[in-house]
Formats: sequence, C-alpha cells, structure tokens
Amino acid sequence: MASQSTSLATNALIKKALDLRDDSLSRITPPLALNHLPEPLPQNVRGIPNEILEKEEIEITSLEANEILNAIRTKKYSCVTVCKAFLRRAALAQSLVNCITEVLPEFALERAAYLDSLDEPVGPLHGLPISIKEHHGMFGRMKTCGYVAYIDEDHSGVSAVNDVLWAAGAVFYARTTMPQTGMHLETSSNIYGVTLNPYNLSLTPGGSSGGEAALLALRGSVLGVGGDSGGSIRGPAANVGIYGFKPTTGRVSRRGARVAPGGDGIIGSHGPMTTSRSGLSLFMRTYCNSQPWNNDPALVPLPWREVKLPTKLKIAFLWNDGIVMPHPPVRRALDDVAKALRRHPDRFEVVDWVPLDHAKADDIAMGLYFEDGCRAIKEVLKKGGEQPRPLTQWIFDNERVKHKTIEEVWEFKARRNEYRQQYNDYWLATGDVDGHPVDAIISPAAPGAAYPHNKATYWLYTSQWNLLEYPGSSFPVTTVDPELDVKDESYVPKNSRDRENYDLYDPIIFKDATVGLQIITRKFEDEKNLAILEAVEIAMGRT
Amino acid sequence: MASQSTSLATNALIKKALDLRDDSLSRITPPLALNHLPEPLPQNVRGIPNEILEKEEIEITSLEANEILNAIRTKKYSCVTVCKAFLRRAALAQSLVNCITEVLPEFALERAAYLDSLDEPVGPLHGLPISIKEHHGMFGRMKTCGYVAYIDEDHSGVSAVNDVLWAAGAVFYARTTMPQTGMHLETSSNIYGVTLNPYNLSLTPGGSSGGEAALLALRGSVLGVGGDSGGSIRGPAANVGIYGFKPTTGRVSRRGARVAPGGDGIIGSHGPMTTSRSGLSLFMRTYCNSQPWNNDPALVPLPWREVKLPTKLKIAFLWNDGIVMPHPPVRRALDDVAKALRRHPDRFEVVDWVPLDHAKADDIAMGLYFEDGCRAIKEVLKKGGEQPRPLTQWIFDNERVKHKTIEEVWEFKARRNEYRQQYNDYWLATGDVDGHPVDAIISPAAPGAAYPHNKATYWLYTSQWNLLEYPGSSFPVTTVDPELDVKDESYVPKNSRDRENYDLYDPIIFKDATVGLQIITRKFEDEKNLAILEAVEIAMGRT
Repeated sequence: MASQSTSLATNALIKKALDLRDDSLSRITPPLALNHLPEPLPQNVRGIPNEILEKEEIEITSLEANEILNAIRTKKYSCVTVCKAFLRRAALAQSLVNCITEVLPEFALERAAYLDSLDEPVGPLHGLPISIKEHHGMFGRMKTCGYVAYIDEDHSGVSAVNDVLWAAGAVFYARTTMPQTGMHLETSSNIYGVTLNPYNLSLTPGGSSGGEAALLALRGSVLGVGGDSGGSIRGPAANVGIYGFKPTTGRVSRRGARVAPGGDGIIGSHGPMTTSRSGLSLFMRTYCNSQPWNNDPALVPLPWREVKLPTKLKIAFLWNDGIVMPHPPVRRALDDVAKALRRHPDRFEVVDWVPLDHAKADDIAMGLYFEDGCRAIKEVLKKGGEQPRPLTQWIFDNERVKHKTIEEVWEFKARRNEYRQQYNDYWLATGDVDGHPVDAIISPAAPGAAYPHNKATYWLYTSQWNLLEYPGSSFPVTTVDPELDVKDESYVPKNSRDRENYDLYDPIIFKDATVGLQIITRKFEDEKNLAILEAVEIAMGRT
Repeated sequence: MASQSTSLATNALIKKALDLRDDSLSRITPPLALNHLPEPLPQNVRGIPNEILEKEEIEITSLEANEILNAIRTKKYSCVTVCKAFLRRAALAQSLVNCITEVLPEFALERAAYLDSLDEPVGPLHGLPISIKEHHGMFGRMKTCGYVAYIDEDHSGVSAVNDVLWAAGAVFYARTTMPQTGMHLETSSNIYGVTLNPYNLSLTPGGSSGGEAALLALRGSVLGVGGDSGGSIRGPAANVGIYGFKPTTGRVSRRGARVAPGGDGIIGSHGPMTTSRSGLSLFMRTYCNSQPWNNDPALVPLPWREVKLPTKLKIAFLWNDGIVMPHPPVRRALDDVAKALRRHPDRFEVVDWVPLDHAKADDIAMGLYFEDGCRAIKEVLKKGGEQPRPLTQWIFDNERVKHKTIEEVWEFKARRNEYRQQYNDYWLATGDVDGHPVDAIISPAAPGAAYPHNKATYWLYTSQWNLLEYPGSSFPVTTVDPELDVKDESYVPKNSRDRENYDLYDPIIFKDATVGLQIITRKFEDEKNLAILEAVEIAMGRT
C-alpha cells in the first residue's frame, strides 16, 4: 500500500517484504479454499473460519492454550497436527483481516515433529503454537517495527522472551503486523497496509499489537506475545474481545525487539495476549519461573509468586478520567461489572476511583514518549522513503511533541518521579479510614470500543498506567449494542478532546465492536492483578 | 574556609551553617575537655578518644551495633546513656577530623528518653544511635549537599531511609560532612572545609560519605548512612578501615536527599557504613524487611532473603583493571586475602578476574554522570557565590565532561545497556566449563589507600560497579606498612592516569593508611554479597 510518492527503491523494499509474506503463505498445505470466501466479506468475519476449515482444525483451534497442552500431553493430538491447524487458520485470518507478516510452515512443522519425537515434554509449553509481534527478533527473520527503512537492516538477534518460550517447548509459526513507529492504537504501515478488526472490518483491532489481536480474535492463535508502552497490548485486546496483560516494567524482557531510537522516560513491557484468562498466567508463570533476570540485567529477580487475596476485595471503578468521557458501551461495561461485584457483598466492596490529575500524567507522558519531537522517527521514515501514516502524522502534529534539551528532559523526569510518588501515596491513602487500601482499579481500556480506522488518538486510559509502571490486564466484557448503547444527546463535552471523542460515537458505526476493561494493580502486583481478574470474572458468572 | 573571592552574602550563608554546627556542639553536656588535646595533634588521632572520654563512654562506644542493642535490651545501659556517650564521642571526633555538620543533643536525648520509657522495644534498632550524611533530609534540618546556595533552600522532607530507621527505633544524633557536589572521593566544601582521615590527618577519609567514614573510624558512630553513585560509600569505608555496603540500585530508597539537578544514567544507592560486618546486615535486614517499596515506587519488592551459598565458592580476584595499577599495599591486600582463601581449598576456588573493557565503562560513566557538562552544578555554585573546590574543578576540566544533546545521551545509554548485557554474559560465561560461574569478585576499592587531599581522582574501581548496578561491600584488610609496601621502581606506567597514580605513591606519605577491598556480586545478589563477605572474613581468621 505504498503511496504514490514512494520511490522505486522504496517500492522494491516493500515488495521484498510482501513477497516474503506471500511466499510463506503459499507454502501452507493443504492450501486453503479461499475461493469459497463470501464476496464481499461481511462486516463481521468471525464466523468464516468455521465454513472454510476442516472439522478437526476447528476443534483444535477452539481449544484454549491449557487444553491444547493437555491434548498434546495425552497424545490426543500430535504437535504437528496442532501446528498445521494453526498455520492454516492463521493463513485464513490473513485473508480476512491482514494481520500476518509471515508464517513459518517448514520451521514450525520441523520443530513440532522434533517435539513429537521426544519421550518427555521439553517444558511447560511443549508443542504450543505461539504467535509473535513482528519486531520481536526471531532467529534472524526480518523485523521492521513498521518502518520501510528497516526491511534491509541487520535482523540478527533473538527476542529474550522468545528464547524462554522456545526453551519451554513453544512452536513459532506466525508473525504479526504492527503499525509504523509502534506508537499507534491502530495497526497500519506502508509495508503491510491496514489490519482490520474481525468483529467489524470498518474498525481497527487497535495497536500496536493489533496483528496479534486480530489473529487471536479469529483463533488463528490462542497465545501471542505483544508489547505495551502506551496501551499496545491492553488496547487491542479490549478491541477484539481477548485477554491481554501488560506486566510491571522490569518483569518481562524487551531485549531483541527493533524500535526507532528514543528515550527511556517510559519503559514498555512485553506481555501475553490470549484467548483465555488462564493463558495469561500460563505465560507469566512459565516466563518468570525461568529466572529470566539471569540473562537480562534490566529485569528484577521476582519469580511468579503465590498470592493470597484478602477475603474481601476493595475494587475502585474509574468511570471517567476527568478529561474524556467514555462512550456509552464502555460506561455500560463498567456498570455491568460493578453490578456483578455488588452481588457479592461478602467478597467485594465497590468504590469510585477519583482520578488524581490524569491531565498532568498526559502532559508528562507525551513529553517523555517523544523527547526529540520525533526527529529520529522522521529520519527513519526519510531513510525508507515513506510518508507518515495518519496516526504518525497525528503524533508529529501534537503540540506537546517537541525537541527538548537534556535539561528539559530532566525536568520532565523529575515531574514524572514526583507524580509516581504522589499517585502511590494517593493509592495508599485509600486505606486511611479502614486500613485497607484499594486492591485494584477497574478502568476503561479506552474511551470507546474499537474505533474506526485512524481515529484512535486518546491513549490516556492505558498510558496513564505505563507512566506509573503499574500492571494492567484487559478482559472482555461486552459488545456494542445499538439498542442499549444510545448516544447521550444531552452530554456537553468538557474540552476539545472530549468533544472529538463524543462526536465520534454512533452506535451503528461501532456495531458488534467488543468492549474490554482493564484491571490495574499497584507496581509489581502482577500476580495479584491476575488473581483479581479471576475473582472478578467468577463474580461475572464466568468460570 | 570561604575563599577570599566570596561575597558578603556568601560569607553570611556560610556563617549561618557554621554557627548552627558550633552552637549544636556547644550544647553537648558535659562539655569535652578539649584543652587536654595534644597540640599539635599527632598524624594518627585514633588513640585520642581513650585519653579524653570517661571509662563508661569508652566502653559503650567500643561496642558494636548488635552489642549495643543487646545491652539496651538487657538494660545494662539505657538509651540515654548510650546516646550521651555517642554525642560526646562525635563532638570529640569533630575536634579531631572535622566530620560533623551538626549534632542533635536535645532531639536525640528526648528520643532516647522516650525509648527508655517504653515497656517494649519499638523495633529492631531500639535505642541505637545512627549518624546520617548531611544531605539526607531530616525533619526540616539544613541539607546542602556541600553547596553554599542550598544553605537557605527549603529543607522540608525526610529521607525515606530515615523514616524506616526511625520506626525501627533509631536515635539520630549526628549529621556528617560531604563534599561540594557529592561527587568527590574526598570530603571538602566551602561551607565546612576539609574532613580529615583519623589514621593520618594528611590524608583524606575519602568521599563523598567521608564525614561518616571519619566519624565511624573514631567510633563516634557504629552505624551510619551514606550514599554511593560512584564509590561514595565503598571508597571512604576502605580509606578508614570500616565496612560499607552499596546495595543494588532499587533496593534502598534515595528519596529525600538533596542533590543538584542531573540525569538518571547511573542511579546511586544509599547504604550502610559500619564499624562491624554484622552492622551491614543489621541495616539491610531491618530496612528491606520494612517493605520500603510500599512507599517508594522506585524500589523493587525484595525482602532481605535467606541465601544458601554453594559448598565451594568460586572467587575471582581483580588484580588490575587494565588501566591503573593499584599501589603496592592494595596488591598486598589482594594477595593476603587470596592466600587466606587458598588455605581452604575445600571452601574456595581462587581464580583471576580478567576485566572486560573497563575503559569503555569509564567513558560511558563519565558521559552519564555529567550529561550537561556540569552546567547545572556551575549554576548552583554561581548562585552560592562560591568557587569550585579542587576536585570539582577536576571534573569541570575532564575532557569527557561535555554538554550533550538528548540524542547523545540516548547513545550513551544505549552503550551502557549493551555494556551491562555484555558484562552479564561475560560473568555467566565463567561457568561455561564447570557449570559454576564466579560467585564474587574481590576488587580494590581504589588503586591506593587513602590519598593525600585533592588527589583521589580515579573512580573506576568503584564506579565500574555503579555503572553495572552490582552490589559491593568494602571491608578492611590491612594498613600501609612502609617496610612491606615498597615502591616498585621498575614499574613502567601504561598511560597517563597510571603514571599519575604511580607517581603519587610513597609509602611514607601513606603511612598508617588503611586498605580495604570490595566484594562484588551480580545485580540483586545483595544477600549473597554479605554472606560471601562473612565467609571470606572467616577464612581470614576473623569471627
């Protein structure tokens, strides 16, 4: 999808990447009967795999990660059979929503056959197909971070997370799209074009881990790895009805991922995206218990710890961050979950979370994400002969994105540190009266369901927690229902961004879009976060 | 000791600080018989307290921290009696080596009396007098970081470490000197002048926690708190024959300390300085088990963990960092310890540590300590109307200290991260053959014993480990003996800094100076570090 202004050299680079992708897809066997796809595709394509795939493939790809591992362990399915099913389903997903940069049929099947040949499992992920966001280094395979210029860079190096997954028995079979820069809540690049939301092709699956999200939503994967510096796991997970977890900074390695040069004011985290809640803890337990800090001095030496929740949980709801009012389906989702918790007064106390100056967090975050006013990013675009995508341009145009001196960066970091301290004190103070501070916040993952393409510009429901380095898990709650989620015509927006978001809402445009929420706990309370997610889902009537 | 070029306003500020100090000393009761001091003072003043103090005071201040706590617990001494003894001994130390910015007689005695009035100890440090480096905030008391300009700043805020010590029952009674900038291996400021080494007044006690070191060496304290960004705990500890521990970054809070604005490329750590090895673990255990991370989001949630050492320890000796050859007494200290370990071949394997490009570490560190080429420091000096001290000027003149752009800082940080990774891999690779990587490195704490004033300019034997964020403990080994530590006249220096250090050595000049070494373990192996220190000292015949 190169623009008309790209040069021949740029077009040749893009062709190289697309040829690599298409060639890899062409080697999937048996070939998919793509001529059976409805034309045009319906807006919601989630039902299509069941019409195209074989019965056993559908059965296998309907299992959750733990079930797949169990089926392999009990020899119900071989690793090869499982791998083939996911390869085919991933390739089909690509035809529907454009979420794949490359499938790895020979590599994956050879690995699966090797695992099948062993008498004992190599580790807790023995035979599990795992999909990976494309900029995470994988044995020398092309990694671009959505930049044309990086197509021809040195691709050596392996993601440290991939190393752990590999040692635990994972099968890598699919690599997924991400946006130019990796800093969009959208997934579009000049290399691979636009990734679509399987629930509604007119909407984005979010970003930057939107390829993973779209693939998982179509069950072309049940466990994938993304990364999150401003919402890039939690946003897309919420946008497609799956689970996503951004761990505390320092628990999961970021080694071996390609990004444009930048500062360290807000450090992201890789993390799991899964079709099941249990998939999140499967990943985190396996990963953290491998003692990854031995190999990455940026990590803290915390194994995945047992956690004992209080008998009664104090859960705070963030209804509105004080800047942008969430759309009606998001407010309904919050309300539904709050009601579910209130039905168990012995187990939950529900309170409101009054946001502590989130506007300040937004100012600090936008200053620190782009210390250089995007000069380095612009250089990479220039080198690749490519134009900024719309949401890249949106960043460039943001008035808070300016080139800074080191003294200005010091000042931003001083404000950041002070704000982190204030927020910590503020959180602890919620226990002043009863000695029991809030256990978790339940927050929107965005001020709306999945947005129309190029419209997701409000990061703060997720980036707030990146700035604070708090862990956050997204979980699915509901889908947009035009009858229930009518527009509040009486609402008067409080500022220009609130108006922009308000004006975007039309229940017909967002039809079928999923709504997820986030559970936020304090820094390093990763284990507690997932334990509370389980408690909340049980209260919601899930198992 | 203001220079002649200071203004009246500057002189007034300095007078304010000195009056505060002198006034506090004048309130010590009963007054010290300072007219009994020998005149002139001998070079080595360590014997003087026994000639001036009362018998019981000498007895009390000869006890180690654990013994004092026990004596208070068993009511052998009251907290007040202990406090009075240390107040008097600290005041005497001030007369000998100029290490005090303020004593706190009323505040400390009131606290001690309160503790005496209780039926039960308030915590594990009940009644223990603890001295504190002056820039650690203490209930609104003046904190200057050695800058004249900061004498009149807002002094509110309490050091987060002090908060923990206070809750554990500590008695704060003395605050100690530090150099202008806090970035010297020396302790001299335009406010308080020069702090001297009790073993030899012609030498420095090191810095920046040199006030603590000098006070501890005279047993005017048995447990103090310093800070270390480039060697500021370990250097002075080695220079005066005491123990000092720089924990891994992120284990001990730095909140509430005053410093000049700067970057975050190398983050220091507060830590204990003690007259006894057991004092280090007393501090660390008490501090970490207070869950300090609850109140400081920059900390990692690691309690003080039990550690089980391997049956046989692999200890590597860093004889020379490849840049500056240590002086003969330091080489002898290394040799003595290596011999002691080799006498226990069932317990220790002794190997050499081949440094991995420490020159690169030095380049990176000097770039990151002073991102702005010291502009901010110069501003603070200018505001205070003061001249740079010689070792401040040495920093200003360092050719690697330049104002940088943020892109240059990114580059330095990228090199830092890469180097940290390389060093980690390199360390792990020491186990390639036998599966047992090196457990600890024993390294010089400096390329010489305590230096003559204004000559300690080589940081890298300590700053190496700050850059890597590895924990390091200094322990005393020997003192300079002119007969044993003759100058190697045949040595040919390898570079200008090696020559500078070589030329400085003269066993007569360094007479009586103590030599300490450091134990270095991998990042977050703080518990292992102190356990190995114990094992090494036992092998050395200590208890």
